[in-house]
Amino acid sequence: MPSPDRDDQLHLAAFVTAGPGRPGGWRHPASVSDWRSAAYYRRIGRTLERARFDLVFFADILAVPDRYGGSPDPQLRHGALGSMRLDPTPVLGVLAGATEHLGLAATVSTTYAEPYSVARSFATLDHLSGGRAAWNVVTSFQDAEARNFGRETHIDRASRYLRAEEFVRVTAELWDSWDDDALVLDRDAPLFADPARVHRVDHHGAWFDVQGPLNVARPPQGYPVLIQAGASPAGRDFASRWADVIFCSHASLESARDFYADIKGRAAAHGRDPREIKILPAITPIVADTTEAARAKSAELADLVVPEAGLSTLSYHLDIDLAPFPHDERLPDVDVPGVQGHYQEVRELTEKHGMTLRQLGRRYGGTHEGDFVGTPREVADGLEEWFTGGACDGFTVTAVYQPGAFDEFGEGVVPELQRRGLFRTDYEGTTLRDHLGLARPTAGEWRRRAAREDTP
Amino acid sequence: MPSPDRDDQLHLAAFVTAGPGRPGGWRHPASVSDWRSAAYYRRIGRTLERARFDLVFFADILAVPDRYGGSPDPQLRHGALGSMRLDPTPVLGVLAGATEHLGLAATVSTTYAEPYSVARSFATLDHLSGGRAAWNVVTSFQDAEARNFGRETHIDRASRYLRAEEFVRVTAELWDSWDDDALVLDRDAPLFADPARVHRVDHHGAWFDVQGPLNVARPPQGYPVLIQAGASPAGRDFASRWADVIFCSHASLESARDFYADIKGRAAAHGRDPREIKILPAITPIVADTTEAARAKSAELADLVVPEAGLSTLSYHLDIDLAPFPHDERLPDVDVPGVQGHYQEVRELTEKHGMTLRQLGRRYGGTHEGDFVGTPREVADGLEEWFTGGACDGFTVTAVYQPGAFDEFGEGVVPELQRRGLFRTDYEGTTLRDHLGLARPTAGEWRRRAAREDTP
Repeated sequence: MPSPDRDDQLHLAAFVTAGPGRPGGWRHPASVSDWRSAAYYRRIGRTLERARFDLVFFADILAVPDRYGGSPDPQLRHGALGSMRLDPTPVLGVLAGATEHLGLAATVSTTYAEPYSVARSFATLDHLSGGRAAWNVVTSFQDAEARNFGRETHIDRASRYLRAEEFVRVTAELWDSWDDDALVLDRDAPLFADPARVHRVDHHGAWFDVQGPLNVARPPQGYPVLIQAGASPAGRDFASRWADVIFCSHASLESARDFYADIKGRAAAHGRDPREIKILPAITPIVADTTEAARAKSAELADLVVPEAGLSTLSYHLDIDLAPFPHDERLPDVDVPGVQGHYQEVRELTEKHGMTLRQLGRRYGGTHEGDFVGTPREVADGLEEWFTGGACDGFTVTAVYQPGAFDEFGEGVVPELQRRGLFRTDYEGTTLRDHLGLARPTAGEWRRRAAREDTP
Repeated sequence: MPSPDRDDQLHLAAFVTAGPGRPGGWRHPASVSDWRSAAYYRRIGRTLERARFDLVFFADILAVPDRYGGSPDPQLRHGALGSMRLDPTPVLGVLAGATEHLGLAATVSTTYAEPYSVARSFATLDHLSGGRAAWNVVTSFQDAEARNFGRETHIDRASRYLRAEEFVRVTAELWDSWDDDALVLDRDAPLFADPARVHRVDHHGAWFDVQGPLNVARPPQGYPVLIQAGASPAGRDFASRWADVIFCSHASLESARDFYADIKGRAAAHGRDPREIKILPAITPIVADTTEAARAKSAELADLVVPEAGLSTLSYHLDIDLAPFPHDERLPDVDVPGVQGHYQEVRELTEKHGMTLRQLGRRYGGTHEGDFVGTPREVADGLEEWFTGGACDGFTVTAVYQPGAFDEFGEGVVPELQRRGLFRTDYEGTTLRDHLGLARPTAGEWRRRAAREDTP
């Protein structure tokens, strides 16, 4: 039974890479390689919409990672996660035109962008899509990214989060700079917009000076949905205060449950209803008609992964060079500056399952040989256990090969979840906030939340 | 007869505003006000493609202009050109998915963006659209824009163009950072991309430090098409060296012809074939079944324009406050820091036609009561005169009301141009460069051009 702290039904996001996808996946016979074309994203969008997904989510990075061995070559050679990545914003434009219900999320870094541009871009996507835009807020931590934007090294984590905090506040102020009823469109008066209901922002902070108003009316959703993935203490604090959706990664039900309880507790401590935050851990299901066929597919996919492909991606996620460590031994305890969520997962796999670095590379390269491999019913059992077990509000589905694995999940697992009453059989609202069961923020919501923070 | 210096057929761009369009136009009964929706742009894209346009072109500005009377209110009240403007990049994403042939151009400022982001965004659009992307390079000159990006005032023109120059060079280096054959996609080897054919950029200049490589393969067009609109000496020099397409604005055949000859001469002086640059002046045709009906429509449209709507836009284009000048007198000679092309047009209208400021406001607000008002045949006569008279390589068509005026032009004037052999009856290639008759640049083209410049 879902607890009263959670929705009755789970939510589904799809994690899509605007590039070759998970390492090894591009080598699978069922994967297609036209991920540079609009047609590819149109097809994925329609598949996800048929399966009634809440949203599609595009990760991003602003460089070809070169953390493993100090070179981008392993990423490029193996088609690893950072080898090639289209800019997600125009891709969302394609999807805004090609879909009618699906939520549309893009990752944009607060470290290498400007609040006016980001506020405008997501306001535009929210208008174009009729209220379906979402922004995954990241702070970026790769030196390779810094060196593409005029810096030698990335900014330290504390400063990045201070900048992110101010960035998001300014962005919200810009979304609020047009009142909901500012656009009058009276052809006879004539009165296009009421100047009294359009406001300057006049923000002057440590990182940004922005006059405003935005030159786009308030987004249909008030604010586009905000997504965050921080698992460090600073990240969790930021996410529990501002995020609508949290994307995370866990190797076990137990660690997912701990994270879930921690975030919901932090949200409550910040005066939010914990149901205002939807926590959607990543899963990589492998589905087939029989258990044996699913396991065989999993093994086949594992064979396609060159360990170096996975390790070069893990190097970039953890922000440490894994090349010098012996690949047939376990990774020792190390100081990891990168994504803490991934490191927690790695520690769990190393300590509990005894994985060597090479095995980690293979696993990280594309397949999860554990929980969610099996028939649609078996996969649904696993998802139900996590959902009813207090580990999540739904899932972020990654495809082992794009786009086929989304079809398999949508045609196999989703109907099984629907039969169990765990997932919608049709969209009930029009905006992404509707799908997620989130209220539309009224103007000033961010200022009110910030004021609550600033006066303890 | 077209001269051997020009193409046999003219080129057509459509100037679309991702907002209410030309002042007054939004008030016309035939205009629709769903310019916030993806459906609106899909419809415009398909109209233009049916009419075989070369490209659609989105202007942009990064603020609600407040130059007239020091306030954004007149722009907002009257739905003037800068009142509300969606971000053109996601709009191009919609169009990349919804069209198959049309070139797709967005304006992005070199003053308030980063080369890595811009190179990536246009490379993405070029891939998504199969080689149809174009970038209109602007340097931005409004203090209102500067104040949305952490500055009190805009950078001076000379510095802006130095920055633009370096910006465009770095962008081209990033597009060249993947050789054309770098993406191998060999699933068996496996070899995704050949690291030996992906290069760092290692740019260290006065404005930018960028390591590279880009995380997107070389665009299908080599470089997306570059558009420029500078009419100042610095702008003309920049455009004649780097632009593929020039957008401009002229009140008479004579001034258009002077500009045309000047640019083509400058291009030749820089060692370019003058046919490598397509000059497409803006026109605002008003088409109807009879001459009288067209004139009546023009008058009707003029009545919809509040002079203040046009003057507040003119104030922003010229970057001077026109509010204090007597509106029933002619504008005296003034020092204009803004768009020189528009000022030349204003001077011509003031001196030759005796227009007062109020009349300028009305004209600037949305209608051209001169050259291109009439039946399809009469409008085609005017276009033919300009084209064969050495004033242009084609036109940038602005709609007096969106999107209807594009339908009228496409259904009336285009067939007339086709009958005369002046315009294509079908697309003959697949990329925008194909439509424009421009060669695909090989890798290093920009470095070669820059080297030619740097060694006189």
